[in-house]
Amino acid sequence: MKKYVIGVDIGGTSVKNGLFDLEGSLIAKWEIPTRKENGGEQILKDVADAINRQLLERGIESRELLGVGVGVPGPVQTDGYVSLCPNLGWKDYHPDRALSQLLGGISVKAGNDANVAALGEAFKGAAAGEDQVVMLTLGTGVGGGIIVDGKIVAGVHGAGGELGHIVVNPQEPLACNCGNHGCLEQYASATGVVRVAKRLLEASDQESALRGKGVLTAKRIFDEAKAGDALALKAVDTLCMYLGLACAHCALTIDPDAFVIGGGVSRAGEILTEGISSYFERFTHIIPKKAAFKLATLGNDAGIYGAAKLVL
Amino acid sequence: MKKYVIGVDIGGTSVKNGLFDLEGSLIAKWEIPTRKENGGEQILKDVADAINRQLLERGIESRELLGVGVGVPGPVQTDGYVSLCPNLGWKDYHPDRALSQLLGGISVKAGNDANVAALGEAFKGAAAGEDQVVMLTLGTGVGGGIIVDGKIVAGVHGAGGELGHIVVNPQEPLACNCGNHGCLEQYASATGVVRVAKRLLEASDQESALRGKGVLTAKRIFDEAKAGDALALKAVDTLCMYLGLACAHCALTIDPDAFVIGGGVSRAGEILTEGISSYFERFTHIIPKKAAFKLATLGNDAGIYGAAKLVL
Repeated sequence: MKKYVIGVDIGGTSVKNGLFDLEGSLIAKWEIPTRKENGGEQILKDVADAINRQLLERGIESRELLGVGVGVPGPVQTDGYVSLCPNLGWKDYHPDRALSQLLGGISVKAGNDANVAALGEAFKGAAAGEDQVVMLTLGTGVGGGIIVDGKIVAGVHGAGGELGHIVVNPQEPLACNCGNHGCLEQYASATGVVRVAKRLLEASDQESALRGKGVLTAKRIFDEAKAGDALALKAVDTLCMYLGLACAHCALTIDPDAFVIGGGVSRAGEILTEGISSYFERFTHIIPKKAAFKLATLGNDAGIYGAAKLVL
Repeated sequence: MKKYVIGVDIGGTSVKNGLFDLEGSLIAKWEIPTRKENGGEQILKDVADAINRQLLERGIESRELLGVGVGVPGPVQTDGYVSLCPNLGWKDYHPDRALSQLLGGISVKAGNDANVAALGEAFKGAAAGEDQVVMLTLGTGVGGGIIVDGKIVAGVHGAGGELGHIVVNPQEPLACNCGNHGCLEQYASATGVVRVAKRLLEASDQESALRGKGVLTAKRIFDEAKAGDALALKAVDTLCMYLGLACAHCALTIDPDAFVIGGGVSRAGEILTEGISSYFERFTHIIPKKAAFKLATLGNDAGIYGAAKLVL
């Protein structure tokens, strides 16, 4: 009888793993390093070895395992195919099939990590129980995940939920990593908000606690904004405006129940969700009832929860 | 045995109806006027009467009918509920339940007309057989429809696919009908492109075939653009830029196989799909393979095909 599922979240430095029961309750967690050498050929072998060790230690037989879900830090097509994953060195690869073979034929499903995190938050996190959810992960970059009818929208070319590259300001002179100009990621990531603040500091002589004194970080900008610093508030306002605009684009496309904001920048808290939601209302006049904005609650575990949900 | 479905497309002046077999082949079409008086209370009675007449004439028994699908010119929630439909006078209404009752309990499903048209084009039209499709209808306004996994994304608040109100230019001084500023509809509708051309004419002294000589229409602008008129070309380019931008937003959200462009303005033809697709490529650097841009092929019948598909 099937009793368990495993969620695997592969990152650039470590692989997070979770053993869950069929209701999605977390039973155990373990972490292993990500060995990226030789085109990342060791990664799934290490994952399989660690899974087998865990099952053995806990006296779980592999026939009790319903399946394994895997989050991959790059585009994954609906059929599990990975064309290119520079973060791991994978090329032209079917990680789902490879891991299934390593585990003696157990069912494995793979998805993009940002999408899988969104699924996790919709399953057991901030939007638990909601079927239509958009998640934005504000970290070094900006990732996104789209859940429609309780399922990930991976997209035909693996670009579903690539919300960080929505062009919110075509007039932007600087290029984004993707080569485009004015992507959301250029303003709403940890580095983006610092760039916005620096521009504001250069463009005026206004007094600000952000001037001088060490490195400018996203955290410092949010802290000073909360303390009332006008220039820091303006930087946060710019970030919220662009996020509100991009969320409005999503809402006018798929109109979800909720937006979940996660990633390091989301530690800023309600100043962020309130700011975004106020711009969101302005940019969605046509929608009478508005989606909710929520802070992610699963943190780094969103990926293993979502990966588990892939096979549930 | 079930042999037939009926697709009903309710418009502001007339109701189009189609009888289909279970493969979705059109057997017969009929049209009746839309009687909007008294809160539109007659509309579905007229629809039911006409259906019963058709079945009688063709010797079809109602138990041979699998169901009836209905396209409604306003927001329809996933459960078929219509909160407000000013185009028909309906308020707080369940057209699916009402029509089902009028037809003796036959299964009825309702959807927004732009969504239903998108479903029609994905079923038997320009994107036949494709499961991930976005349709834009460029008419007096700009409508949209989103198909994910072969199904309409109606949205939690009925605003799925409201692509005409994506804000593509927050700097726009004029207000849209929705109260917002810079909605796609303000540039990409039949009236929108005329407004764009008038602005260009006012802003320069450049010679143009669009100056003087009668009323400026979308058709005339496209005709002169095809004939090489620089100012008309610039107006068409503006429209294509904003459409390309809005389509890029959709692609980075749900990443479809194809975009289908329909509505009166789409009669302009390939100048439109080529223009949009060139801006789309610019705004979707991150997506290696691009979605196709296609002209709608079902014209005014998209609604009845899509409505039929609702119950198939």
